[in-house]
Amino acid sequence: MLRSGQVPTPPAAVGDEVFAALLGVAEEVLTGDQPAAVGVGCGGPMAWPAGEVSPLNIPGWRGFPLRARLTQRFPDRPVRLHNDAVALAAAEHWQGAARGHDDALAMVVATGVGGGLVLGGRLVDGATGNAGHVGHVVVDPEGPACTCGGRGCLEAIARGPALAAWAVQHGWRPSGEQTARAMADDARAGDPAARSAFDRGGRAIGIAVASVVQSLDVSVVVVGGGLAGAWDLLDGPLSAAYHRHAGLAFARVVPVVRSGLGPSAGLVGAAALVIRGDVYWHGDG
Amino acid sequence: MLRSGQVPTPPAAVGDEVFAALLGVAEEVLTGDQPAAVGVGCGGPMAWPAGEVSPLNIPGWRGFPLRARLTQRFPDRPVRLHNDAVALAAAEHWQGAARGHDDALAMVVATGVGGGLVLGGRLVDGATGNAGHVGHVVVDPEGPACTCGGRGCLEAIARGPALAAWAVQHGWRPSGEQTARAMADDARAGDPAARSAFDRGGRAIGIAVASVVQSLDVSVVVVGGGLAGAWDLLDGPLSAAYHRHAGLAFARVVPVVRSGLGPSAGLVGAAALVIRGDVYWHGDG
Repeated sequence: MLRSGQVPTPPAAVGDEVFAALLGVAEEVLTGDQPAAVGVGCGGPMAWPAGEVSPLNIPGWRGFPLRARLTQRFPDRPVRLHNDAVALAAAEHWQGAARGHDDALAMVVATGVGGGLVLGGRLVDGATGNAGHVGHVVVDPEGPACTCGGRGCLEAIARGPALAAWAVQHGWRPSGEQTARAMADDARAGDPAARSAFDRGGRAIGIAVASVVQSLDVSVVVVGGGLAGAWDLLDGPLSAAYHRHAGLAFARVVPVVRSGLGPSAGLVGAAALVIRGDVYWHGDG
Repeated sequence: MLRSGQVPTPPAAVGDEVFAALLGVAEEVLTGDQPAAVGVGCGGPMAWPAGEVSPLNIPGWRGFPLRARLTQRFPDRPVRLHNDAVALAAAEHWQGAARGHDDALAMVVATGVGGGLVLGGRLVDGATGNAGHVGHVVVDPEGPACTCGGRGCLEAIARGPALAAWAVQHGWRPSGEQTARAMADDARAGDPAARSAFDRGGRAIGIAVASVVQSLDVSVVVVGGGLAGAWDLLDGPLSAAYHRHAGLAFARVVPVVRSGLGPSAGLVGAAALVIRGDVYWHGDG
């Protein structure tokens, strides 16, 4: 990676202001150069491959025509856009912990839970560009309501804010902020409720991964996102639940590993959409 | 379909006797003609594409080299073999209820629960040829032990014999045999335990289908196998559970339909492996 930049999402901004902030950081990184192509990973949901995005965490963008607007700004070159968790999966397959595997699941456990799939050496898009939503695998049919409208989804249980809220309900008194990161620090320092929250999250991830691996016969599972930063706390309960539920011989031997690329995975995946479009891009343009 | 034949599996037979029975029915159907190619759907698990099969219901075949033996008998022509539920999925995509869909799940609910997937217009094999084992999606983490070694799998709950046993435990007195078919008859005649068993099975299928559809963004789900013969009993609870758990917009609109090909689906799918190998066969040969 030659250059990178970062800018906060303008709070409560309208769509055009968010786009202006995005273009601002792009111009800064380009320093006058013209890009050969533009690759984008963006929060979902979205209409794909049209690239009209409605990221849950950016209320100003609802059906925002991000791909079309980028094509206006950078005409005559490919502009390709996918879900940010799908981009992470492309990155892990291209250069990370899933390299060399023709069949892989990569997931992100953070504010939400997302993922992407490579099967038969090819990124899976799904009928509407939404394949990889493994955060909505059901892990507890009578579990909590999910923002998707369903019930007992992995995301409803294991996303960072849900685990932190669960820990507080069960007696965790955060020494700092009520975040997954602070909860990890307190769990390592011996807080039993904080530790139980990681057990709960790891177990839910293990169940969901067992369901996906047994359905799809992938040969590796990669876990990234903020919660994977507490791999020391997550790995044990995740692995125990996975092996409790994944009984088929081909599934029992599948490694579930931590992301190999860390925070830059999303950018590497956005690049993969254009640099290795033969594997990772099946939309138009 | 020009000709077909059928022969019972020799009970408690050794591998070579089962194979002789299979060749016998093949010769009978061929009536002296030579086939251009040989396609096979066989119960799993198996080593794929080698075609060394260990079908759970044929104890005489454990690692039996079915594909190699058929190649010996029918040399110089393609011999292709896949899981029988994967063959059914190929058939439903080629000529059945999933025709015209690039992304489809087809499943079989019978003595066991299996399935196959077409994604991006291409049959999914998985890393070891075992993709499609949707019977081992976890639908109740604290549910019954599964023959796979896991717990709470769809198959452990919804396979015909498990549902019939559950119904008997809950007060069903079979008017005939203790089979899913007799249970359907008694449920239609008003037996409450028999009816509850179909509620239980439909609910488990609906939860598993929600998990798979949300992960993979398929645009249709096809259900076949003996239990789908009681679609009038299964459809309501299946659909209710599906819609309780499939909250994402792209998933809510996915139709879950009954198999369009009925009992011949397996044979049509075996033919698809050789007639439409461009879509349905990615092994050697």
